Amino acid sequence: MIPPRLVYKAPVLKILDQRLLPHRTEYVRARNAAQTARAIRDMVLRGAPLIGCAAAWGFPLELRSRRASSWHGTLASLRKAAAVIKAARPTALALFYAADRMLEKAESFVKAQGAFSPKTHGELIKVLEREAAAITREDRSACARMGELGARLLGRNTVVLTHCNAGALATMGIGTAVGVITTAHSAGKITRAYSSETRPYLQGARLTIWELQRGGIPSELITDNMAAHLMKTAGINAVVVGADRIAANGDTANKIGTYALAVLAKYHGIPFYVAAPTPTIDLSIRDGRGIVIEERSSEEVTFINGRLVAPKGVRARHPGFDVTPAKLITAIITERAVIRPVNRANVLKAVRGAV
Amino acid sequence: MIPPRLVYKAPVLKILDQRLLPHRTEYVRARNAAQTARAIRDMVLRGAPLIGCAAAWGFPLELRSRRASSWHGTLASLRKAAAVIKAARPTALALFYAADRMLEKAESFVKAQGAFSPKTHGELIKVLEREAAAITREDRSACARMGELGARLLGRNTVVLTHCNAGALATMGIGTAVGVITTAHSAGKITRAYSSETRPYLQGARLTIWELQRGGIPSELITDNMAAHLMKTAGINAVVVGADRIAANGDTANKIGTYALAVLAKYHGIPFYVAAPTPTIDLSIRDGRGIVIEERSSEEVTFINGRLVAPKGVRARHPGFDVTPAKLITAIITERAVIRPVNRANVLKAVRGAV
Repeated sequence: MIPPRLVYKAPVLKILDQRLLPHRTEYVRARNAAQTARAIRDMVLRGAPLIGCAAAWGFPLELRSRRASSWHGTLASLRKAAAVIKAARPTALALFYAADRMLEKAESFVKAQGAFSPKTHGELIKVLEREAAAITREDRSACARMGELGARLLGRNTVVLTHCNAGALATMGIGTAVGVITTAHSAGKITRAYSSETRPYLQGARLTIWELQRGGIPSELITDNMAAHLMKTAGINAVVVGADRIAANGDTANKIGTYALAVLAKYHGIPFYVAAPTPTIDLSIRDGRGIVIEERSSEEVTFINGRLVAPKGVRARHPGFDVTPAKLITAIITERAVIRPVNRANVLKAVRGAV
Repeated sequence: MIPPRLVYKAPVLKILDQRLLPHRTEYVRARNAAQTARAIRDMVLRGAPLIGCAAAWGFPLELRSRRASSWHGTLASLRKAAAVIKAARPTALALFYAADRMLEKAESFVKAQGAFSPKTHGELIKVLEREAAAITREDRSACARMGELGARLLGRNTVVLTHCNAGALATMGIGTAVGVITTAHSAGKITRAYSSETRPYLQGARLTIWELQRGGIPSELITDNMAAHLMKTAGINAVVVGADRIAANGDTANKIGTYALAVLAKYHGIPFYVAAPTPTIDLSIRDGRGIVIEERSSEEVTFINGRLVAPKGVRARHPGFDVTPAKLITAIITERAVIRPVNRANVLKAVRGAV
């Protein structure tokens, strides 16, 4: 239904250009780590789990793109690749998780080898390709599991609201928040799903509502500022969103607008769920105050479809994310467990129980 | 600074086409009540007080556009004009107020006359033109007075958020909510003003931020979904908005997204002010449940600048307004008094004290 988001065929990673969706299905090609990072930075692809998967493929691509004559040079190029990839988007932990994991894999492989040879260098590439494939596989199965666990939390006649795109297009599987909705829909539990358009990038209007439509789920698009009115008047009884990074106490960074929805859900007595795989949880960050929020360009707000909608010279803010405090989150749905209530002890239990 | 919104020069009303702002300054011409109503419906102009003023001019235009031979026919055409004008936008009370006032003026004039004559018909036109001019004048002075009363409520170092456009472009004066901000700015009280872009029509991005810029007020544009994050992180300490219709208990209908801001302001302990002239208060409606909310076309959500941003065939909701309950409103600033706390008794006192 949804076109493949990433197609790896050495020495090229084809990346679905999500900026052109839903009207055009085109791919951007990356042949090394820098090109992969650029695609991530320019939002050719987005969604924390998906950019994690793409980042992983950046490592074998990088090795295939250059001649190697020593382990020292090889590891130096991978370390540089990791730095470039991590700098592409500062908020999504999946990116850091994938980059660190790939780099560690390479380092431990090299440590176990003797002298450099083209043959063992070729083996390293295969090892990294298998590792990237494993990250992809894990993402797929995490999505499926979150779908099951999350769907159990929803009752019959659920009218659900989701924000941004935490769907198939944000992952290599069925999605995180949207995966919960589609799984619940298969179980006959979804009466209607609302997708907020999610300015400025309109991921909800361009991506999520398209996924919901293709999934045959009764759905309606709303502007971000309609959410409160529809919570009051349209019987919304669940909110499910994804996450880019979750602190050790459960404070959650996600697409700008998420925090507002959490406050509004609280006011209306509506449960607010976050669906995110455990690689989204950053135990090194105590609480939300430690999460770096990416400030993107103001032109992304003032231009729509290449046309300036505001007066010339206007200043616009563009924080890409916001932080929702744990106390506003009813439960965090991970692939391992449902964290509920959301607090440090339960977050730790879910993550450590996972290792 | 801001171009004239309405220029009446019999037998034509020139209406500034706000759909083209801020990039182009063009006028649409109305020569009768139906053309005036169409301009209102198509949002050539918007803003409750301004469409009230335009509606008033529709009455003398209507008489100038047709041959008359009897009072019966004249009044019938004005009654039809009133119906057509009221049907243009169902939520803004100013429209109903102006239409009713013009019609009553005509009816009482006719009642006081003897037989129909072209001369007395000409006098009726003059009477209606004077009445429309009076409505305009009253709107101007109401704006100035709300500015004074509202500015007193704001402290030094105010960081204020406003929604939609309740500025000069929404009135014939300095605006309602924006009038409060500009008056407070003149008194040295405004550190910064945020304007939410206000999807789907982008009145904040196209109109309000332009007014603030021209007024020399330090200002920044945000998307609607950033408000909560900036309340938490950017020191916003006041929200001021306009109103389209206020029920007898103070429940307030205003542009979609207003209710969300009121809930978010409450959560963050930020005062939430409504600035609106007394003709916005509808004593015939007990509370917000009685206010009709206009549902506009879904294409206004799915198309931006004439381009479809969502997949084909998508369903989108488009309530034009929402209702903010009185309990979330710190004060209603009218031209007569500041209503605070907002409740039925205080609303009645402000309105009746006004008559």
